[in-house]
Amino acid sequence: MDNRKTEILSGIHPVIEALKANRRKFFKIFIKKNLKRSRPEINAFFKHIDHMNCEFEYVDTRLLDELTNNAKHQGIAARVSAFPVMNNNDFFARVEKSEKPPFVLILENIEDPHNFGALIRTALCAGADYIMIPKDRSVAPVPSVSRSSAGAMEYAEICLITNTASTIRKLKDKGAWIAGLDASGETSLFDTDFSGFFALVVGGEHKGIRPLVKKECDFLISIPMQGKINSLNASVAGGIVLYEAFRKRNLLN
Amino acid sequence: MDNRKTEILSGIHPVIEALKANRRKFFKIFIKKNLKRSRPEINAFFKHIDHMNCEFEYVDTRLLDELTNNAKHQGIAARVSAFPVMNNNDFFARVEKSEKPPFVLILENIEDPHNFGALIRTALCAGADYIMIPKDRSVAPVPSVSRSSAGAMEYAEICLITNTASTIRKLKDKGAWIAGLDASGETSLFDTDFSGFFALVVGGEHKGIRPLVKKECDFLISIPMQGKINSLNASVAGGIVLYEAFRKRNLLN
Repeated sequence: MDNRKTEILSGIHPVIEALKANRRKFFKIFIKKNLKRSRPEINAFFKHIDHMNCEFEYVDTRLLDELTNNAKHQGIAARVSAFPVMNNNDFFARVEKSEKPPFVLILENIEDPHNFGALIRTALCAGADYIMIPKDRSVAPVPSVSRSSAGAMEYAEICLITNTASTIRKLKDKGAWIAGLDASGETSLFDTDFSGFFALVVGGEHKGIRPLVKKECDFLISIPMQGKINSLNASVAGGIVLYEAFRKRNLLN
Repeated sequence: MDNRKTEILSGIHPVIEALKANRRKFFKIFIKKNLKRSRPEINAFFKHIDHMNCEFEYVDTRLLDELTNNAKHQGIAARVSAFPVMNNNDFFARVEKSEKPPFVLILENIEDPHNFGALIRTALCAGADYIMIPKDRSVAPVPSVSRSSAGAMEYAEICLITNTASTIRKLKDKGAWIAGLDASGETSLFDTDFSGFFALVVGGEHKGIRPLVKKECDFLISIPMQGKINSLNASVAGGIVLYEAFRKRNLLN
């Protein structure tokens, strides 16, 4: 087993969703001695590992703390293969074959794993088809993101990109509309047409979308706001836009 | 000065928004020695304390750490009067006099100050008029909530209630529609009529809305979800519903 290619997932939701999603290889599951089966999700977890014939071992809390770098492991961890990601070529090959026009979320400069996880979780619930992440400018799809997404990341189709601006140009060549979420945006969220092959760019918590990415967007969307406060938490703002897109795209069907 | 009636606000946004909102008495502002004025928000902060003639003192980081209980103070803290809250009588007197039918957010059982702060921040941006909090069942409007709301709490009209079920009955007597956000809800968010005097009940992260509160609701709303994951982060879910209400209520004007 090559440790460089494995990672430690921790927490009930990441481990159980990774088992269900069945996209990672499970080398070993670590379970805290005397973990109570009374909670329904723990019971479901044991059923899953029985069903999938995974190797597991009961261990001390101290070993779990060590393995997970003191993450909130809830008595459960697993050594698994790295999260499967796509590259640009994989992505465009998939898009060519897709039956309906896809919805893509591009996460630029997201630095906080909690916001990152919450955005992935919301994107999946709102029916986004793909999530693109710049390799060097955002949190990677690491175990802590899986945990803050409550395991949703395990089902996400994530494409790592090297250059956001050139990826956007290629998306436009293929017929996509590109919108950036930006406080200066002249198109109100409520007036935005989200139909067809669509990519939404969400920028980081502090700096937003970089200017050279912003200028590649077809238009910029802003969220209407009342009152004295004119900013929202990054994951809440992204969630509001993702759900408005979901609502409108569903109306069209 | 009676310390029991004062509290320590910390962080740039809570302190500056509290100064702007002008609803608390400022006893003293504490500023880290050599705090750089180059950041625009720090510069704006100094202009405000000049303008408002507040007493302030330059102090060591260690004193700030101590005063704020090691919160992320960003070099700024203030001893202020407690956050002003309404009781039931104040609230209903205000409602009687309001020109347009109010929108009320009732936060039940919210335990995490981050979710609590994010919900208050979103509620204000989405034009909610009042926020009700059960005294014994949710986080109180304490300084850490002001910080996680990025200072938005300082503008919020918050009513502390003692009994959620009886408050809901009184709201109904006064003509309000009451909706609970609940995964079992039979009304889709997208089909919900949010018009008129309206109260939205959002439950806690783990247990949701208590049954005895749920049964007082006129109807339950659920958020449509796709895919394998069927839950959202509490503050994201609340934000999505608040914005759908905002959108629909604005369409009516």
